Amino acid sequence: MASVAIRVEGDLRVTLPGPLRLDCGVVLEGVEIAYTALGTLNAARDNAVLVCHALTGDQHVASPHPLTGKPGWWTRMVGAGKPIDPARHFVICANILGGCMGTTGPSSLNPATGRVWGLEFPVITIADMVRTQAALLDVLGIEVLRAVVGGSMGGMQALVWATAHPKRVRSAVVIASAARHSAQNIAFHEVGRQAIMADPRWRGGRYAEAGVTPAAGLAVARMAAHITYLSEPGLQAKFGRRLQAREAVSFGFDADFQVESYLRHQGMSFVERFDANSYLYITRAMDYFDLGMPLADAFRGVATRFCVVSFDSDWLYPTSESRRIAQALVAAGCHASFVELSSPFGHDAFLLEAPELNRVVDGFLRAGEC
Amino acid sequence: MASVAIRVEGDLRVTLPGPLRLDCGVVLEGVEIAYTALGTLNAARDNAVLVCHALTGDQHVASPHPLTGKPGWWTRMVGAGKPIDPARHFVICANILGGCMGTTGPSSLNPATGRVWGLEFPVITIADMVRTQAALLDVLGIEVLRAVVGGSMGGMQALVWATAHPKRVRSAVVIASAARHSAQNIAFHEVGRQAIMADPRWRGGRYAEAGVTPAAGLAVARMAAHITYLSEPGLQAKFGRRLQAREAVSFGFDADFQVESYLRHQGMSFVERFDANSYLYITRAMDYFDLGMPLADAFRGVATRFCVVSFDSDWLYPTSESRRIAQALVAAGCHASFVELSSPFGHDAFLLEAPELNRVVDGFLRAGEC
Repeated sequence: MASVAIRVEGDLRVTLPGPLRLDCGVVLEGVEIAYTALGTLNAARDNAVLVCHALTGDQHVASPHPLTGKPGWWTRMVGAGKPIDPARHFVICANILGGCMGTTGPSSLNPATGRVWGLEFPVITIADMVRTQAALLDVLGIEVLRAVVGGSMGGMQALVWATAHPKRVRSAVVIASAARHSAQNIAFHEVGRQAIMADPRWRGGRYAEAGVTPAAGLAVARMAAHITYLSEPGLQAKFGRRLQAREAVSFGFDADFQVESYLRHQGMSFVERFDANSYLYITRAMDYFDLGMPLADAFRGVATRFCVVSFDSDWLYPTSESRRIAQALVAAGCHASFVELSSPFGHDAFLLEAPELNRVVDGFLRAGEC
Repeated sequence: MASVAIRVEGDLRVTLPGPLRLDCGVVLEGVEIAYTALGTLNAARDNAVLVCHALTGDQHVASPHPLTGKPGWWTRMVGAGKPIDPARHFVICANILGGCMGTTGPSSLNPATGRVWGLEFPVITIADMVRTQAALLDVLGIEVLRAVVGGSMGGMQALVWATAHPKRVRSAVVIASAARHSAQNIAFHEVGRQAIMADPRWRGGRYAEAGVTPAAGLAVARMAAHITYLSEPGLQAKFGRRLQAREAVSFGFDADFQVESYLRHQGMSFVERFDANSYLYITRAMDYFDLGMPLADAFRGVATRFCVVSFDSDWLYPTSESRRIAQALVAAGCHASFVELSSPFGHDAFLLEAPELNRVVDGFLRAGEC
């Protein structure tokens, strides 16, 4: 393995050389991983920062999305002069196992049958996503991560990285996340899955062969989920009861209110970039996520430095869940910083302009780089 | 009109003798109202209590539901020895306009065409529901109500009763409700409507003629709504992450968690008793509901006594909305009592065993009967 700095930027793809054994017992062969890299891996190979994406995110953390043309989903956190800076970090972000942006998932071909996996794809876990990322790092010759950083489901991956591979992670940043998926969150996910599976075009998951997509069901799933990403005061401030380009209500079922029109748009634009079966698998992985009780046991002996961040208006992953993580970390003797930030934007806050979040992540990462 | 006490108990039905002019401008002829009555209307005709039902409620407030056989939806509040007691009150509960339990609604026949209304039924408002109830009282020869009592959408009706017909309402009890539907609540309703309309069996609202029902879409709508009726701590206490009759997760998409199984049951049992188009119309009426700003203007000159009750774990109609009503009432010089009760059960609390709620309603009603 070369001990000089290497620079491999752009949209990349590897096929894992070995098998991947999943929590469910299934062994996947020839797993493909689509990822992006930014910056330069230094000669010591110790400046890699892995960014883990959330449910509907992907590897395009700071580069335009190839389908929508929109900027990367975390350009506020990753880029020149940002807390995660390609000038000093080798930034890696990989599409998760089960995803639909190039990494093996239910829309990939099953090598054993030659047809699309569909619901024959094994049910995966957050730990399986992390295993896949660890195998990618093995391929890249990266033994230690300077940091693993993620919000929401990305935070779950950061927690699993630190607990399953404690020697490989110096620092973990866990934003707007939880150490287990709550009953309410399982319930919202179940609504989304039922909406997809109720769509006749879903066809038991075999829509790809039929050349159709369960767009209506997936849009409803997204609409329901999207409400949970916002906050009631945020919605009230952004939309209130304002009408959609009308003087008065229409006494009909068109989108009278701006919030209806906004939600419909969220649903419709989502189906253009996301796969319904991936939505089923990834929500399931989140539902299954639970680091166990007492939580401190999961962290015992872990030398990773942790930074746990919550937002006060986030009711999907409320501060109480982050506090629970922080308490368990301290109880386990870990290095743990816990910050609750104020924001009107609910769970979405971690993706939006949040100068305080940037200052916290920047300070935490730099302190670990001394 | 007889000035002696009358007793007309049971499941009853009237056809309005005159036309009903709606907010949208449409005039409905021959509106039928299905209602139940309990107790005896006294000779002074001043002991009538109108109970207004919520979105998916009906006239069977204290009698078994004819389709499900379950007890009335508010037997904890209405009955012998309860705050609303047929021994001293003449209790009336009518299925709302737009409903599906006997009162004219989108599943009724349109007299002009002879076929089911479907989406040709006019879009209605909470005020239209109240107009229909007022017309029923006219038929029954009841000029003044001792009280109008309702939770959730029933509370909206109580507010409209007191503001639109202030001379006819002595007391109003508004429980777990609001003076306007919030952006978040409109958003959740829109998800439910989109789920119904995305179901191909909905057929543009003309499923009745085709002999089908959009059960899958309606079930998804109910599942999403049902989450909003509960509270996160309540769900956590009731279900947590407990598995459904299994030792471990199934690594599949069956209901692994009890909360999933519970939600699916809620969805499936709902479609047996409720009409999809009624769901569209009633949610729309709630979305349209707004007593305006400044809210105090709506209450000025109203002599009705008000009792406003909220539950601390209700995030669908949070205490802040009830507080807003109470403040406006006081600002308008009205008689207003406001109570926030503690309960782990979220919005559903008003339908469940809540001794404090009973004590509050009982005391408030009795004070008005002195």
